[in-house]
Amino acid sequence: MEKIVSLCKRRGFIFQSSEIYGGVEAFWDYGPLGAILKNNIKNEWLKTFIQKRNDIVLIDTPVIMHPKTWEASGHIQNFTDPLIECKKCNARFRADYMKDGNFVGQGKAKEKNQCVQCGGKDFTEAKQFNLMFKTFLGSVEDDAHQAFLRPETAQAMFTDFVLAQESMRMKIPFGIAQIGHSFRNEITTGNFIFRSREFEQAEIEYFVKPGNDEKAFEEWVTIWENFIINLGVKKENLRRYEHKKESLSHYSKRTIDIEYKYPFGWSELTGIANRTNYDLSQHSKFSGKELSYFDEENKEKYVPYVIEPSLGIDRLLLALLTDAFDEIKGGRTETTESVKEEEIVLRLDKKIAPIKVAVLPLVKNKENIVKKAKEVYQLLKPYFMIQYDEVGSIGRRYRRQDEIGTPFAITVDFETLEKEDVTLRDRDTMKQERIKIRDLANVLKERLES
Amino acid sequence: MEKIVSLCKRRGFIFQSSEIYGGVEAFWDYGPLGAILKNNIKNEWLKTFIQKRNDIVLIDTPVIMHPKTWEASGHIQNFTDPLIECKKCNARFRADYMKDGNFVGQGKAKEKNQCVQCGGKDFTEAKQFNLMFKTFLGSVEDDAHQAFLRPETAQAMFTDFVLAQESMRMKIPFGIAQIGHSFRNEITTGNFIFRSREFEQAEIEYFVKPGNDEKAFEEWVTIWENFIINLGVKKENLRRYEHKKESLSHYSKRTIDIEYKYPFGWSELTGIANRTNYDLSQHSKFSGKELSYFDEENKEKYVPYVIEPSLGIDRLLLALLTDAFDEIKGGRTETTESVKEEEIVLRLDKKIAPIKVAVLPLVKNKENIVKKAKEVYQLLKPYFMIQYDEVGSIGRRYRRQDEIGTPFAITVDFETLEKEDVTLRDRDTMKQERIKIRDLANVLKERLES
Repeated sequence: MEKIVSLCKRRGFIFQSSEIYGGVEAFWDYGPLGAILKNNIKNEWLKTFIQKRNDIVLIDTPVIMHPKTWEASGHIQNFTDPLIECKKCNARFRADYMKDGNFVGQGKAKEKNQCVQCGGKDFTEAKQFNLMFKTFLGSVEDDAHQAFLRPETAQAMFTDFVLAQESMRMKIPFGIAQIGHSFRNEITTGNFIFRSREFEQAEIEYFVKPGNDEKAFEEWVTIWENFIINLGVKKENLRRYEHKKESLSHYSKRTIDIEYKYPFGWSELTGIANRTNYDLSQHSKFSGKELSYFDEENKEKYVPYVIEPSLGIDRLLLALLTDAFDEIKGGRTETTESVKEEEIVLRLDKKIAPIKVAVLPLVKNKENIVKKAKEVYQLLKPYFMIQYDEVGSIGRRYRRQDEIGTPFAITVDFETLEKEDVTLRDRDTMKQERIKIRDLANVLKERLES
Repeated sequence: MEKIVSLCKRRGFIFQSSEIYGGVEAFWDYGPLGAILKNNIKNEWLKTFIQKRNDIVLIDTPVIMHPKTWEASGHIQNFTDPLIECKKCNARFRADYMKDGNFVGQGKAKEKNQCVQCGGKDFTEAKQFNLMFKTFLGSVEDDAHQAFLRPETAQAMFTDFVLAQESMRMKIPFGIAQIGHSFRNEITTGNFIFRSREFEQAEIEYFVKPGNDEKAFEEWVTIWENFIINLGVKKENLRRYEHKKESLSHYSKRTIDIEYKYPFGWSELTGIANRTNYDLSQHSKFSGKELSYFDEENKEKYVPYVIEPSLGIDRLLLALLTDAFDEIKGGRTETTESVKEEEIVLRLDKKIAPIKVAVLPLVKNKENIVKKAKEVYQLLKPYFMIQYDEVGSIGRRYRRQDEIGTPFAITVDFETLEKEDVTLRDRDTMKQERIKIRDLANVLKERLES
């Protein structure tokens, strides 16, 4: 894990947020390569579920919703953690994470049942603390003006159910999807981007006729799992965890987590829940508006059930980085240089690799070669995320690209000047083949799309 | 404007946020077509400034940053509006919007100098009200734990300046860019999505050597304007407005707004500012970290100046919808049906139109034709955002697609069954030509990319 974190910082994938100010706990910045990687993951998700299917529509709604939303959804009442407070220094701890007198994962006290901050031994009773971030609309800071940052993107799919269904004339079964930031004021955080206070979700609320929900649930578990595997998560590092009846969320009839074997252990990567008609019914009740569906063919009206496949983009990104991370002791044997340090190859799927192609002049000090390399770079730039690099030996530059997962490297050499061809090197096989410059764009398009 | 708002709601572009709860003032939901349209605009921006250039890198950072950020940036002190409060009902008003005894744009009182809400005549002195949304990190709601939702995406480009520059080995001049949500707790709102409390920004901070800033500023005004025009904003509806010295923001040496002729009048669509080295210097001062650049070639160190082209995606989207909106009285003369109502054509640029192609069987009740149309639909779906529609007369369906800006409509008719070709109809010219099914994907790709 440390190696991944270090690579992420060094190569511009992920930084601690507001690092110059000492960071803000559990907030992370995506740097130049991380931002592109994340965008690529999001685009693959949109392509798979919005473009290639005809039964799911996308919406894009604000982080701040009407405060009634969270009363109806049950979040005001149920989205809480029990906290106890040290009477001496006011530090707060998760009461439910207390085990055998220790605050698991919340710091270390000298003795059991002691405040990890000041050593105090006197705590308040546990109080429920709501995990939603609070803010105020307008200039008055009182209860009447309070609002919340959404803890999930899902609720807008329920409040906009009728608007989306009618404007797009959707027929059940159909889904409403959204990608966006969600916020949870977590007390215990950690494990890099695994549990952040601000994170990005990709959720689908898939509406079905009551009675068809159990079958749809099963289908979505498989679809979701396949999507993740298709992006590059190794199947053997995934397992399903079915929530027990008594530990289900207040809205759920059934929940399966897909867990991933993170460097810190098996943990939830994504989940699929059968939310029943709970949310639509609650919003109907609280808003006074009917949120139902009329089936024209069978002339029947009902409140649909909903299956929710939900994905944390940051958790998926961490899993993808983990499975892509390959460290080769002593380096690979491609070049004649002696490589002492370990060599990292980030075996990201071509679909999501942030840089698709690198263009490298064999040497920096031959004007003709540099000029030609820059021409090749300009030729390909309209089509791909591409990097030009002339600094350091060619072997060093290959390694620099391997480390960030670039699938293809093009080298412009002396032969290029005569034959108008270049070497195309494959990141994984290290195989090099010569390709005519005029064919390059098409060859790369084909290989990157396959 | 009303017509645009109505079309946006009816056809799934933009809804009032949390509409079932009566809405939340100045928050808007992008519906299925609006979300795709907005994504397309964002993707064009990324393609233009990140992919096609080699001097700008993207980052993606949280809405909540370290609170010190806003002290350093000057937002705590300067990002305020003067408010006066009615002593009777506590309603608040913008003191600087008071003109001749009337609260301009904030409601209508019976008499001058009267509270528009209760008629009270007694107001407090003006107090400065900060426009940043406030929240609290952790479980304690006091000043020490307060944080803010960013009012601009820009600040992360300054706090991450060194991390981004070093990890990507960027050389000045270069830019750091970001797209994301920003939040402003505006007291006066309105004009549809023009002034929202939560909105999406696309900003570039372009770092240059001091002394090169004025030239870079001029260049960016032109680049920015061209980008907007290239997406479909009409040149004649744009004008430049140069801020007077005395009304510049606290950080700015020079600012030019590009204004657009919105239905409610000329207003700022986007702006370019010369922020000098203000932000980097301030963050250095407040963090104690050096935020400078070392020029290897000339062996000199300096704090770069920064040119900021900033864009509100929502404002751009509104301008694009406005310029695309075309209402044809009495309808167009394509079909033999008599068209009584006005016909709307949304002449969106092909690059950003949410649906690229519609597939329409000529009639619904011929099994062969419907089957063939569905085949064509499946054939093209992997490549384009596409809709299948069989409901209503063919003329009605053309109009339905015109209204949402779909550039191409394909009709499968009786001839198709014999000749394996379809009609391809152009939204703007209404010209129809017959294209072989096997050529369709390529023809469409070519026309959509040109």
